[in-house]
Parts: sequence; structure tokens; C-alpha cells
Amino acid sequence: MAKQERAIATREALVAAAAKVFARLHFETARVADILEESSVTQGAFYFHFPEGKKQVAEVLIQRQDEGFIQIRDELARSGLDGLSAILALSNALGQALSSDPVAQAGIRLVTQSSTTFPGVAKLPDPAWLDAISGFLHRAEGEGNLREGVEIAQAARSVVYLFTGAQVSSFVNDAWSDLPQTLHDVQSFVLRSIAIDGFVPRSPS
Amino acid sequence: MAKQERAIATREALVAAAAKVFARLHFETARVADILEESSVTQGAFYFHFPEGKKQVAEVLIQRQDEGFIQIRDELARSGLDGLSAILALSNALGQALSSDPVAQAGIRLVTQSSTTFPGVAKLPDPAWLDAISGFLHRAEGEGNLREGVEIAQAARSVVYLFTGAQVSSFVNDAWSDLPQTLHDVQSFVLRSIAIDGFVPRSPS
Repeated sequence: MAKQERAIATREALVAAAAKVFARLHFETARVADILEESSVTQGAFYFHFPEGKKQVAEVLIQRQDEGFIQIRDELARSGLDGLSAILALSNALGQALSSDPVAQAGIRLVTQSSTTFPGVAKLPDPAWLDAISGFLHRAEGEGNLREGVEIAQAARSVVYLFTGAQVSSFVNDAWSDLPQTLHDVQSFVLRSIAIDGFVPRSPS
Repeated sequence: MAKQERAIATREALVAAAAKVFARLHFETARVADILEESSVTQGAFYFHFPEGKKQVAEVLIQRQDEGFIQIRDELARSGLDGLSAILALSNALGQALSSDPVAQAGIRLVTQSSTTFPGVAKLPDPAWLDAISGFLHRAEGEGNLREGVEIAQAARSVVYLFTGAQVSSFVNDAWSDLPQTLHDVQSFVLRSIAIDGFVPRSPS
């Protein structure tokens, strides 16, 4: 590998190791030494890539988690699914990511448990989430699937709160391993509130 | 004051001070010194009452928060309100407590942000909550106010997730100061999902 490629690989190894550490340990408890042990990278290399320490790599993880979410949202927006089915598919994709992907786990845990440490990047309800859900609700309205009287801004906030509460609870219970099932359980509650009677959701193809 | 009364007063002063500290600081960040400074009690007295340190006083706060919740629930159960109105009143009471009472703030923050430190007492969704909401939903069913097809266990879990997500988000945003408004906003989403058309909630007298 050329020198620059090696540097990128080292930085990625540190980010991946930090994801595992921050998924497992609270930000305040985790130490740079834990990241070094997980990655087998030297302390010198760590501070070369992240001169501001563990907070800097944590911010990278929060941003990556957000980018991952936006990618899922954009794929669903292009998928041809109707708006309400896209909301359910988005929640399923989130459940999958949080039950298996350390970057998603670390990003969400940092935002929900250490928000005061990251005032610039940690926002709840996440504006990208609110945007995505509002957009899909507007689409559902155009498709004639929205129950009469639903206020889109209020419904979008409620859906985001519901997912936030489900994932926080699932983390406390069993480190997210039952989150896909938990999210599946709440979906009929959501549909009952926002969908016309007889609406049948579709799955992404 | 007799010696025993003074001891009780000192212990209560420590619990009240710890509530303010754990409402403001993450459990891992807070130090016994912060509690001493807040209470003007000596270190010796602190360890006399809480020989196991800050973790022990934190557990007292988690339990008090839970007892406070159960008291509100029992008052509402006796109030003569219908089941669905009692659920809304419970959520309003929670919003009030979290926006103003350090014991409620500390208890909830400890459970949601430091659950792994308190595996014995920190449970989400809180069993007392699930119980309370299920009970009120059963009452609503008997009163003919439940929408057709609502599954009570699933609806109870969803309502608790929704309140959990609303309070976690409200904490991240502005330390709960807008929680009463946030909870008010989600109530119509909840009613839409579980109440018969035309249901009008009542307020506690």
C-alpha cells in the first residue's frame, strides 16, 4: 500500500474500533486505551488522526450514523414504495442496523446518552429523521393513504419519539438484540393512528 | 432536634442534593464532592448514610422516582376519570414532574442514561408504567372507549415507548423544559390510535 492508503486504512481501523468501544461502553467510561486495544493501532497514530482525542472520533461516529440513515432514506425514497410502507421499511432498516452494526449502535448511544457532550451534532428528535418521516407522510397524503385529520408535523414528531423510545428501551433491556421485534410490534400502533382503514403495507422489493 | 431526627434530616438533605447533581450531571461525571458541595454536609456524614458511595444514593433516587410515579398512578386510578383520560392525565403529571422536580429528573436520567450501572433497578419499559397503562386501557375497554381491534399489551408498550422517546428527546433539547408541551402534542397521536371516533378526554377535577 502507498503511504496515503495506509494512513486511510489506519484511520478506518480506529473508527471501526471506536464504534465497538462506544457501542459497549458509555462515552465517559471509554478510554483511548480501549480503542487502541481493539484496533492494535499505536497511541501516536491515534493522536495523529484524532488530535482532539476520543471526543473527535465519537463525533465522526455520530456523523457516520447520520449519513447511514440518510442513505437508507434516499434508497427508500427512490424505491417506488408508497409513503406509509416507506416509513415502516425505514423503521425495519433502523432495527436491523442497531441490532448488528457497531457504527449505528455507537452513534445512537452517543447521541441519546451523551448529548450534552456533543451539543453541535447530537440533536433529538434528529432533524434528518423528522424530515424523512414528514416527507413520507406528505407522500402518503398524496396517495390518499393518510387518515383524515392527521397533522403531518405532529404525527412525524410522534413517530420519531416512538422509535426513539423503542430503541432506548431495547438498548436498556438487551443491548438492542430484540429491537427488530420491538419495532415490528409498534408498527400496527402507528398505522392505526395515521393510515386509512384497510391500508395494507408493502415490503421493499 | 433529637439525634435521630437530625440523622434523618441529614440523609434527606443528601438525597435532595444528589437529585440536583444527577439531574445536572451524568452519573459517571458526578462526584461525591459535588453532592457535598450542594448539600453542605460533610464527607463523613455522607459515607455514614451511604457507605457504598454515589451508586447507593443514585439507587435511592431511582426508587423514589418510581414511588412518585406509583403514587400519581394510584391517585388517578381512584379519581373516577375514565381510562383514556387517566392515561393523558398520567402523561401530563409526568411532564410536570420532569420539568420541575429534581428527584424525577435524576431518577429518569439515571435509568435512561446509566442503565448498565443499575441492572437491578433500571428497567425500560418500566414495569410499573406498563402495568399502569395496561390497567387504564382495560378500564377504557370496559367503558367502550377503545377503538376496535386495539391489542392492549401492544398498545401499552407503544404508549410507554412514545412517552420514553418524548422525554429523552426533550431532555436532549432543553433539559425537559418543553416536556409538558411535547407530551401534549403527542396525545392526539395516541388517542387517534386507541380511542373510538368522537372520544373527548376529561381533565382530573
